[in-house]
Amino acid sequence: MSENPDKVYEELLNRVKEIDLIYSSLAVLDWDQKTYMPRKGAERRAKMISYLSGLGHEKFVDPKIGELLETLKSDNYDKEEYSDEETNIRELDRQYQKYKKVPNSLVRELSETTTLADQAWVEARKKSDFSEFKPWLEKVIKLKHDYAEAVGYPKEPYDALLDDFEPGATVETTGQVLDNLRTDLVKFVEKVLGSGKHPDTSIVEREYPVDKQELLGKLAAKTIGFDFDSGRLDVTTHPFCTGFGPGDTRITTRFDPKHFNNAFFGILHEAGHGIYDQGLDPKHAGTPRGESVSLGIHESQSRMWENLVGRSRPFWEYFFPIAQGIFHEALRDVQLDDFHFAVNDVRPSFIRVEADEVTYNLHILVRFEIEHAFFKGDLKVDDIPAAWNEKYNHYLGITPANDAEGCLQDVHWSNGLIGYFPTYTLGNLYASQFFVKAQEEIGNLDELFRNGSFIELRDWLLKNIHSHGQRYRAEKLVEVVTGEPLSHQPMMDYLRNKFGPLYGI
Amino acid sequence: MSENPDKVYEELLNRVKEIDLIYSSLAVLDWDQKTYMPRKGAERRAKMISYLSGLGHEKFVDPKIGELLETLKSDNYDKEEYSDEETNIRELDRQYQKYKKVPNSLVRELSETTTLADQAWVEARKKSDFSEFKPWLEKVIKLKHDYAEAVGYPKEPYDALLDDFEPGATVETTGQVLDNLRTDLVKFVEKVLGSGKHPDTSIVEREYPVDKQELLGKLAAKTIGFDFDSGRLDVTTHPFCTGFGPGDTRITTRFDPKHFNNAFFGILHEAGHGIYDQGLDPKHAGTPRGESVSLGIHESQSRMWENLVGRSRPFWEYFFPIAQGIFHEALRDVQLDDFHFAVNDVRPSFIRVEADEVTYNLHILVRFEIEHAFFKGDLKVDDIPAAWNEKYNHYLGITPANDAEGCLQDVHWSNGLIGYFPTYTLGNLYASQFFVKAQEEIGNLDELFRNGSFIELRDWLLKNIHSHGQRYRAEKLVEVVTGEPLSHQPMMDYLRNKFGPLYGI
Repeated sequence: MSENPDKVYEELLNRVKEIDLIYSSLAVLDWDQKTYMPRKGAERRAKMISYLSGLGHEKFVDPKIGELLETLKSDNYDKEEYSDEETNIRELDRQYQKYKKVPNSLVRELSETTTLADQAWVEARKKSDFSEFKPWLEKVIKLKHDYAEAVGYPKEPYDALLDDFEPGATVETTGQVLDNLRTDLVKFVEKVLGSGKHPDTSIVEREYPVDKQELLGKLAAKTIGFDFDSGRLDVTTHPFCTGFGPGDTRITTRFDPKHFNNAFFGILHEAGHGIYDQGLDPKHAGTPRGESVSLGIHESQSRMWENLVGRSRPFWEYFFPIAQGIFHEALRDVQLDDFHFAVNDVRPSFIRVEADEVTYNLHILVRFEIEHAFFKGDLKVDDIPAAWNEKYNHYLGITPANDAEGCLQDVHWSNGLIGYFPTYTLGNLYASQFFVKAQEEIGNLDELFRNGSFIELRDWLLKNIHSHGQRYRAEKLVEVVTGEPLSHQPMMDYLRNKFGPLYGI
Repeated sequence: MSENPDKVYEELLNRVKEIDLIYSSLAVLDWDQKTYMPRKGAERRAKMISYLSGLGHEKFVDPKIGELLETLKSDNYDKEEYSDEETNIRELDRQYQKYKKVPNSLVRELSETTTLADQAWVEARKKSDFSEFKPWLEKVIKLKHDYAEAVGYPKEPYDALLDDFEPGATVETTGQVLDNLRTDLVKFVEKVLGSGKHPDTSIVEREYPVDKQELLGKLAAKTIGFDFDSGRLDVTTHPFCTGFGPGDTRITTRFDPKHFNNAFFGILHEAGHGIYDQGLDPKHAGTPRGESVSLGIHESQSRMWENLVGRSRPFWEYFFPIAQGIFHEALRDVQLDDFHFAVNDVRPSFIRVEADEVTYNLHILVRFEIEHAFFKGDLKVDDIPAAWNEKYNHYLGITPANDAEGCLQDVHWSNGLIGYFPTYTLGNLYASQFFVKAQEEIGNLDELFRNGSFIELRDWLLKNIHSHGQRYRAEKLVEVVTGEPLSHQPMMDYLRNKFGPLYGI
């Protein structure tokens, strides 16, 4: 041992904690940009964000970080698996080894190209003309291939992209789970749609004044465990949740005065992300041991609160009288059962972000299949619109009228976020599997929800998931928490048990 | 010449522009902290701010900056006085030479001590007990002496502090102007207070609903020239204005539903600062040529719009009917003359930030005299409360009942801002002197204001002051713009011409 390993470890942590202060500052710049920034501030803000991002990246790929990691690894400082030290060294090393392989020129080129591709996408979507976006998507794909080659991958280039969002995930493992899901889900969706039953959704499309929506939304977020002394709710165009480190987590929403669902379930969703963020161990802030596992695990928290809790009947047994009190005009003649059915309406639709929880994962499967195919070279970029429309017709029985409501609807590809979509469905699968276990360990969740008691579930999630940070990768975490590898079964069971009775199937 | 001087200059500017991106990011962190940050985010935010401040300072005192400056100076790259290049080199060199002399240990000690001193001040003010704050003030004074000795000064240590806020100002020059002002102002205040006349101020203390105050305040800010596409108005505890660079200037206010003046004139004041910020040349953003001159010049802009414009009769000839329309209940039975008199009420008071424009500068003189005396060693810290009360009695005929409404009311000293107060009065003096010239060059400002036309004055300020950045130091700027050195006469003339008729003196 050349140096005192405790000192080496401390220096490593001090460095990454400083870098994390830069990323938290970036998160503030980004949040403000999306909530309050005046129109003409955009150009300057882009410069600030680009400069600080570059600074953070530069400080992280500093060879000194590599040296510190090497010293610790050769000293076996990380010997006890899943200890705080092993977690930090393992995850920092993983990131360092990956990012140091990306040439600066590629980082810059990707950043510049996706900025322009994003602008081209905005224009193309306005005109509903995929051909305008096509050359930009081709450039993005080319650069992402260069990226995959630079960082390496287990079997195929797409694995390198998946790994950015869901560390450790591969086409082989994730693809298998998604394949199994596809088979069962397509059949189930057919049955639901074939039932001929429909809720009266007009009751959630009445007058819902924005100030009252905000009141109820914040009440619900607080009731399920979001701490408003450590966070805020603000308004934005595309809702998101972001954290600035311990004590400050921001959630956002948008209000439609003529639709109850958007803001209410949107707030529950973002509050779910926020509760995860607020549950990270502040002692480990700025290090992997104090950070969230993956996008998929993050999504499992938001979807659990939004859907498994927030669209459940017990939840509404507690909340419906409150909602009726607040929206007296809109809800006084409405029965709980009708309201509960209305917020669980299943119908085929073109737009992912508006999809119900049954058909939602088919939207994701379409995207996964298409991006995997074009990235592998099995699908030409020219053929994306046709492939997209064909798949919507196949899975949902509907065909988009144009590219804007088809393959141009999502921002992801233009931003270089290829490999991101699967994490949405992984999130749903994790959520169901965790929820079964929570049910088992806590006892009668329905009864607790009926009494407005959500703290037991929140504390269970805190103990089993949030407080561990990145101690376990997603795949391992699922096994540690539930005793089983990830499977599509718990979600299918959940969907059948819930929507079976609603649709009489 | 060792290198291509154009390249050297470009490298210097690139470096300082990058550093400016850090400072703009810090401004966002600070703004959010004071407007929206949840309570528990404070500790983390302090770390983010401290880290980025350190980074900005470190990058600015980098010896490379010194080398670049030396090369440019020895190449005579700055030969044409007041050119863009000379301005940038002169001002960067001034700052560099000053700040590089401050040892890092002193920067840290000052930062830590003022953080603690500020907490002690909050507690001491709560208990209205100066003795609790005393040891902290002594520490701050000691460190500010160390600072003055480190950076140097022309005649006395206090000059080094003045120079931080009003570059180039000294006790000798500024003190003389303030002395002249004192003599005339004390006499004039005596006459006003001796007149026995008082407006009916109850009319500005009626019900002024906050949403309507916001509506009128934003309308007024927009009308005088604040661009809301490049800025925002938000709510805070201690109103301020801050800029994040071109296209993004934030003003803040606080609303009292039972007092018209606070928010309305506060918004005009901050909008005045904001209009200056929005008038800086974006081409020179991040370099002295694109930055504001000094706190005093900044204050001249805010006070001009707040008082010389916003409390003038012509302004209210235009705005009073609008205000009456918005606050129908509160103002329908009120006459323009009575309203105008009510917003120009002169009376002795203890609290600086609530003082009228006639007595305001006496509040500043008290603070200047006291801080100058204790910093010189002519006044013991123990004797501050007595000296303070004695001066209030002498100048305004009133004696504070306790330290909270006396010498503990301002946050400045606990934050190490000794030498800051004089800039408030300098701002008032600059404002009056600029205004005379604007009047002369534009023509009948009264007539323009009466018609709601403020763009002529805004454009004049843009052309003569804002667009120059730091081309001229404050003292020189006054001479260039008005043809005369700074004098207290224009302000005394303004006060006499305005308040003479109102008070029949």
